[in-house]
Order: sequence, then C-alpha cells, then structure tokens
Amino acid sequence: MTSAPPAIAFTGSPLDRADHLRADPDALAGQMNWRARLLKLDGLTPGMDDGGALAWGTLADCDPDAELVFLGLMEGKPCFAPVPAEGAEGPAYAQPQVWQAINLLSEQDLATYGGARSLVDWHARHRFCARCGAATEIAKGGWQRDCPSCDAQHFPRTDPVTIMLVEHEGKLLLGRQPKFPPRTYSALAGFVEPGESIEEAVAREVKEEAGVSVRDVRYVASQPWPFPSQLMIGCHAHAVDPALTIDETELEDARWFTRVELEEARAAGSEGTETLVFPRSVAIAHHLVTWWLEHDS
Amino acid sequence: MTSAPPAIAFTGSPLDRADHLRADPDALAGQMNWRARLLKLDGLTPGMDDGGALAWGTLADCDPDAELVFLGLMEGKPCFAPVPAEGAEGPAYAQPQVWQAINLLSEQDLATYGGARSLVDWHARHRFCARCGAATEIAKGGWQRDCPSCDAQHFPRTDPVTIMLVEHEGKLLLGRQPKFPPRTYSALAGFVEPGESIEEAVAREVKEEAGVSVRDVRYVASQPWPFPSQLMIGCHAHAVDPALTIDETELEDARWFTRVELEEARAAGSEGTETLVFPRSVAIAHHLVTWWLEHDS
Repeated sequence: MTSAPPAIAFTGSPLDRADHLRADPDALAGQMNWRARLLKLDGLTPGMDDGGALAWGTLADCDPDAELVFLGLMEGKPCFAPVPAEGAEGPAYAQPQVWQAINLLSEQDLATYGGARSLVDWHARHRFCARCGAATEIAKGGWQRDCPSCDAQHFPRTDPVTIMLVEHEGKLLLGRQPKFPPRTYSALAGFVEPGESIEEAVAREVKEEAGVSVRDVRYVASQPWPFPSQLMIGCHAHAVDPALTIDETELEDARWFTRVELEEARAAGSEGTETLVFPRSVAIAHHLVTWWLEHDS
Repeated sequence: MTSAPPAIAFTGSPLDRADHLRADPDALAGQMNWRARLLKLDGLTPGMDDGGALAWGTLADCDPDAELVFLGLMEGKPCFAPVPAEGAEGPAYAQPQVWQAINLLSEQDLATYGGARSLVDWHARHRFCARCGAATEIAKGGWQRDCPSCDAQHFPRTDPVTIMLVEHEGKLLLGRQPKFPPRTYSALAGFVEPGESIEEAVAREVKEEAGVSVRDVRYVASQPWPFPSQLMIGCHAHAVDPALTIDETELEDARWFTRVELEEARAAGSEGTETLVFPRSVAIAHHLVTWWLEHDS
C-alpha cells in the first residue's frame, strides 16, 4: 500500500472566491469591515507567523492609499491582499526569500499565496490602459481594471503553458535550460499561442525545442504557477522518432532518460544522482514524471 | 462504419509558425520580400476569393504605415497580416459578415484566420504600455510589444476558459445565456482565474452558475476561440447532486437533458427540436456533446 501522493503545489486553497460579491459594490464595501483579514505581504513576499503559516492582519494594517483585492471568504471571513508599489522584477528563481517561504508553507497556504500573488502582481504591472495609455482604476474587488478615459475593461491574465512528457520506447525526453541548477532536467514546456489547441501547442513546442515530432498527445494534469501567472497544462505524448535537434537558444541540453535513471534520481531526492537531479516537488514536472513512473509501466 | 468526425473548428492551420525567425530581425526582414503573402482583412473581417477561400495579396497591397505580424510560413512562403486601426468592438455574434465567412471557409482557412485575427486584434487593443502608459512598439514579428519608456515587454494574450459537460444519471446539464438564439443551450463555461487548476476552475464555475458540486473532472478536448482569444478547455464531470440553483446574472436557464433529447436535437440540425437547438458545429460544445453521445453510453 502506498501513501497518498502529495497534492500538486499551488492547488487546494480553502478560499471561497465568492464571485457574486465582486460585482456588487455595496456588498463588497460591506465586506471591508473589522472582521476582514489582510494577507501580509512585503512586496510580493509572504509574511509568515511563528508557526510557519501565512500571516494575516486586519485592514487597519493597510496603507490607506493601497489598492486592495478581494481574495474571497475563508471560514466566512472576507480576505483581502494589498497591491504592492512594484510588480515582480526579474525571474522568480532569483527571490530566495520567496522560495524559502514556499518550502515552509502548508499546501493550503501555498495555494492561497500563489493566487493572491498572481493577482496583486498583475495590478502592480497593469496600472495603465493598454488601449489608450490612461491610468486605470481597480474594479470588482480587483478582478477587473477600468479605464475612465476610453471605457476599456481589463482582466487579470492567466497564461496557458503546455508542459509535456515525451516518451519513446520506454524512455522520457527531458531538457535543461542554462538557468537550471546543475544536473537538473525537466519536462519541455512553452506558452500556448493564439490560434492553437493544447495538442497543437504541445506538438509545436516539442518540434521547436527538440526537433521531435509527436503523436497521441493526451492531457494528464494542470497547475497554477504564480511566477507570474501561468496555467501549466501537463501532457504526455509519444515521439515518432527519437532523433534530437536541440534549439540551443532555449535549451542547454535535452536527452532520453531510462526508467531506472529516473527512479534512482527520484529516490536520491534533492541531491540527485551523478547524472540527474529530479524536478523539485513544487513543479508539475515532478508530478508528471512520478505519474509516468507509477502508471505507465 | 462511421465517417471521421469533423475537426474541431479553428484547429489545423497549415501554417508553420517558424518561431526561429521571429527573434532574428535580419531573418524576419528577409522574409518581407516580393514572395510574401498578405492576409487580406477588412478590419477583422476576412477577405474571400471567388472560391470561398481566404484571400491573400502581397505586401505591396498594404498600407505602408500599418503594423504587420508574421504569421509563419505556408508552402514555404512567408505570410503576414495587417494590424487594423481598431480592435474588435462589441461581441463577436454581432458581426454577421464574420459569421458568414466562418460558414464558408475550409477547416484549414478557418484556423489560419482565427489565429491571425486573435493576434492582430490584440495589437490593435494593446498599443500602450500597461505598466507605464507609454506608446509601445511591435517586436518579434508581432509576437511581442516593447515599451521604449520603461522597457517592459508585452505578449499576446490567450485566456484559458473551461467549458464542461456535467453529467448526472445519464443526463447532461446545459444552460443558455440571454443572448443565445431561441431554444439554444450549451455547456457551462468560464475563465480560469489566477491560482486555479483546470479542475478547480471547472468545479467553481459549475457551483457558481448552477449551484452543483462536481466530482471526477476529466479533460476531453481543447479549441482556440478567436473572439477575442480564448483557449477553450473542454472537460467532463459528474454532478454530486442534480438540484440546480441558477445564477440568473449569468444564465437565463439551465436544465438536465436526456440522451434522447440531445440525439433528436443533433439530428434536427440548425432548426433544432421544439425544446432544444444543439450547439452549432463551430463551437467546442458541439464536439463535447457529440463525444458524450458517442462514447459514454
């Protein structure tokens, strides 16, 4: 008997998004009361209490000029988060204090933080109207911004990304970007572009990055990824031919890993083996490869 | 023996997106030659030739001040599309000339048009920097806009939307929005929000719109939808309980349809039966219900 697999990171927030309150200004104002909870953020870094949980305060803790987003209800209490002065600067992996928090937070807290982070970061980087250039105003509890000049409405972004296991004769194709830690390989991935289905995006990305044609693309699992706001769409596909032509502007290396190599690397944890460090558990790639090892044998 | 099902609309473009050319200004300039093809667009409406195919011209047909996006290569020829002066105004269903074209175009042309439309419409509605308000410049053949003032980079949007068949004891839950033609019902749908997996978004949307809790969400199929640029993610789920509480701000009605009702409506084509007009074939809902009727009996 095996233990239950860990949940996919950044899923499982206990927040009720309470969509019906967003569009009702009076109801929303009524939520901004003394019972309301304010997610403590230092910029985009989560505040933590002594127990390693997300720290919450009250609206009285908030800069009176800050924009507030309504995250939803938790245990019946309205929850808000403050929009920081600046959005995310530079890549997420360059923020050690954020990664430290991610390693400490519970699954539920991590999901609550991830969703809040994506949302407040979007506001911080979208204060102006892309249609006319005027300053915009927060609306619907932070689920919209309105342009008072041209009346355009703007909505928080969620960018779909395909991430895929490609299989050939019992081996999996993984690649590494130059920015990855040594020996770390992960699943190939790329943004879904306008005009593509998920299956078409998977095929295009694998062809672009590794020169491999695929067939039988199937969906496996998904994950919200808050750096800044991706929807990771995990898939599996079979390679038509294993010959690799690596796009060296994207990847430093890509190669086929045997089941034994992958199992040994997984067992070796964060140190990895001499040839491979397994994707870390916060990444959906970790779940996809684990799923393949456990279900596709 | 049954005939092959029709492809999901807006998929299957023969364009090679030729991603490697986008980031290379010299290579891209080299593609803007006398052999290049220009997609003829009147605003966002496709030009059609006498045979009912997409009409193409040369770059000489283009307004010299227009921004051009590089769609990719077709039959080895570089293909471009012009950014219109104005983006989409009002809902797509209010554009009869566009729908007329959609009904005439081949599957491949429809996919090429859909992707091009999403892309040029995005440019027309995103000429300014959302971060600082300055005018932005087209970059990478239209797959990016750069801000010369704050150096922000902006990318075309693709908004993931879940659309779901909810099943209970052999019946399917479909709903209708007030704007739908009479008797037309379709699958419930809604945008994936920051911080949600696909499965979480499905569960939230069904709960919000119909008051129904679901279990066993699974992915079925996807579709790019160019009004303006959605990635439709088609799923199936089981209802825990069939009692409906309809959100009347979203839906005019929602109810459970039997297999017989759905099969009769499908057979009745665009006229429908006395109680139901089946979703039209261009919509992924058509494919999802057809998939369910054919595979889930």
